Formats: sequence, structure tokens, C-alpha cells
Amino acid sequence: MLTLYFGAHTCAFASLIALIEAGAPYKLHRLDFGKGEQRQPDYLAINPKGRVPALATPHGILTETPAILAFIAQSFPAARLAPINDPFAFAQIQAFNSYLCSTVHVAHAHRVRGSRWADDPVAIEDMKRKVPETVGACFDLIERQMFKGPWVAGEAYTIADPYLFTIGQWLEGDGVDIKSFPSVFDHSRRMMERPTVQRALAEQSGKAA
Amino acid sequence: MLTLYFGAHTCAFASLIALIEAGAPYKLHRLDFGKGEQRQPDYLAINPKGRVPALATPHGILTETPAILAFIAQSFPAARLAPINDPFAFAQIQAFNSYLCSTVHVAHAHRVRGSRWADDPVAIEDMKRKVPETVGACFDLIERQMFKGPWVAGEAYTIADPYLFTIGQWLEGDGVDIKSFPSVFDHSRRMMERPTVQRALAEQSGKAA
Repeated sequence: MLTLYFGAHTCAFASLIALIEAGAPYKLHRLDFGKGEQRQPDYLAINPKGRVPALATPHGILTETPAILAFIAQSFPAARLAPINDPFAFAQIQAFNSYLCSTVHVAHAHRVRGSRWADDPVAIEDMKRKVPETVGACFDLIERQMFKGPWVAGEAYTIADPYLFTIGQWLEGDGVDIKSFPSVFDHSRRMMERPTVQRALAEQSGKAA
Repeated sequence: MLTLYFGAHTCAFASLIALIEAGAPYKLHRLDFGKGEQRQPDYLAINPKGRVPALATPHGILTETPAILAFIAQSFPAARLAPINDPFAFAQIQAFNSYLCSTVHVAHAHRVRGSRWADDPVAIEDMKRKVPETVGACFDLIERQMFKGPWVAGEAYTIADPYLFTIGQWLEGDGVDIKSFPSVFDHSRRMMERPTVQRALAEQSGKAA
């Protein structure tokens, strides 16, 4: 059994989709970010970074979305969520996920988590103001250069797809119109149609059976 | 043959060390960041992000340090640079490298690349001011919680070691005293003693035979 430490509308949603698509046995441990539960001692003992996702496995705790997604793909090979035995193809997917993690998510985080990198209210406001530009530039690069279609990596659905979908869900809040990126927009609609994603959305909202 | 697109004193140094340790056939393509060569059309055709590292392989171009390091480990298994067939152990290394990429490197980048996330000179100065605190907090977490010793992942040297060493080289410029972190400091000294790292340092400085 795997336990996913989860916050609604966070990047942990990508790992939830991947667990469902892998057919993995899992349970969800919800953290209430409104109450700051991710900073309480109980959770810091699990993930000292005070962030989600964390995945408790029989071998220990894993953190960081790209690592958790690759672990799920490699642990449940029958689900074919990544070309794990092709070093180049696997690395391309890892590169895409690394870009989402280190550049796109970071650009987004300057809207509501600016205090990670500055203290002056003027600085924090200026960071917020620039988010539509920086996040928009990331998605422009994804649309024009990185997205192969119909899925991120081409014909095969992989662990890059739920991660792109998850971050794409934040665009409206970031002041970026997803319709400016036709391939990404189409991808998002097709993701929504997947029963696995519908189940994950229902779990996120607490409405799953 | 692999070609590493490289800038001196950038995170591409981690990939250079890994190539040497893997015994991979490679050549180095140096970009002069002082002249902005990473933003010239020739290079943008290789890596539209305008950053290093990029690794040209017979299959195509790879970007993003964690992906390149994993590709090297998986392509040259005899060098045993990662436990590629143990999903949990491999994911732990990927998680460490993902943290370096998405949190530690990002914290550092607010010192000299603040214009990525803000325009107001007041904001950019405030970001710079906070870097010793944020980078220091990252290394405190690495020292206390993440570093297993004697190498990052324990007894076995892996692709996490050259990456930690590379980012550790930036601490002095970031206003953080590496001696505050005894395990990281000791690691850095032992890395320096490796003939592979000495060769990489000589290549970086243009003094290799």
C-alpha cells in the first residue's frame, strides 16, 4: 500500500492521477493548507520540506513530483506510463517534468509564494505582477517547441501528461488564457475526458465514492 | 559521441563530471555567457530555453540536469552511477537532484537572475539580499536531513554527488559559509580529490591536456 500526502489544487494532483492510472493500491492523506497542516510537526516528520506531494512506500518516503512519477511508472510497468528501458526516451520525459518543476511551477509560485524569495512588500507585489508574463512564456515554449502531440511525448501517454494537466489547471488563476495555446488547451480537454482523471478530480473535491 | 553544451561555473559542470566518470565519449562545446552566446540563434536552435546544459546524443538533444544525469547513468551502466533497476533507490536520487534543481538552484538564481521574476530594481535588490538566508536554509536541510554519507545516497557514489558538489561551489558567492555544514564541506573536499573531478575542473578552466 502507498500513501499519498496530498493537498487539493497542488502539484500533488499529478501523482494522484498517475497512481490511479498505474492501478496502484493507495490511500490519500489530505493536508489542509488553509490550516497550515503541511507545517505541523506530524507532517514535518514525514517530509521536512513541509510541502506536498510525499509518497509513503514500503521502502520509505519519497518526495518531489518528477521522482514520484518516475517511481510509479517504474514500479507498475504494466501500465506503460514511461519508456523506462529506453534511456533517451525516458530522459526526454524526465526533462519535460524537470522543466515543469524547476521553471514553470517556480514561475507560478511567485504569485502566491513570493515571500520565499523576498521580504519587501514592493518586491512581492512586483513578482505577482510579472507572473502572467513568465508563466505565459513557459507555456508558449511548451506549445511551440516541447509538446509533440497528441500527448506530451507523442503517440504514447506518459507521466508527463498528468503533470502538464495539473499545472495547466493553474493558468486561469495566473492570468494566462489557456486558449492561447491550442495544443495545450486540446490536451487539457482530452485529459478531462479520461475516466482516471475524472476519478482524481472527484477525489480532490472529496466527492469520490 | 556525445556533445555537452557547457558554460563555465554553471550547473552544466555536474554533467561534465558525470560524463567523465561514466567513461563516455564526449566533446565539450563551450558557450561564452559573457557574450550572451546562450541566447544566439545558433544555440537556440539546439536548446530553445537558452540555457545550459544541453547534451547532443545520437538520438537527439537532451536538456535539464536531472534528466541528463539519469541518461548518463542509464546509458553507461558499468559505471554504476545510479541504482537504475531499483525503483525506490533510483527515485530517492532523482528526488535529491530534483530538489537541487527546483529549490536550491532557484534560490541561488535570485542573486544574479532576479530579472527572471521581477522588473522593479527594488524587488531585484531585495531578492539578492535574501539569498544567503534561502540558500543557507536549503543546505541546512541537506546537511541535517537529506545527506546520508559518506556520499549523498549513502555508501555508493551516484549522480547526486557531482550535482551537489557543483551547487556547493556557488556557496561562497551566495554569502553562505560551507563550513557551517560539516558533512557537505567534507563531501566537497573528497570530491576535489577525485581524479575525475580534477580533470573536470581543468576542462572547465580550459587547462585540460
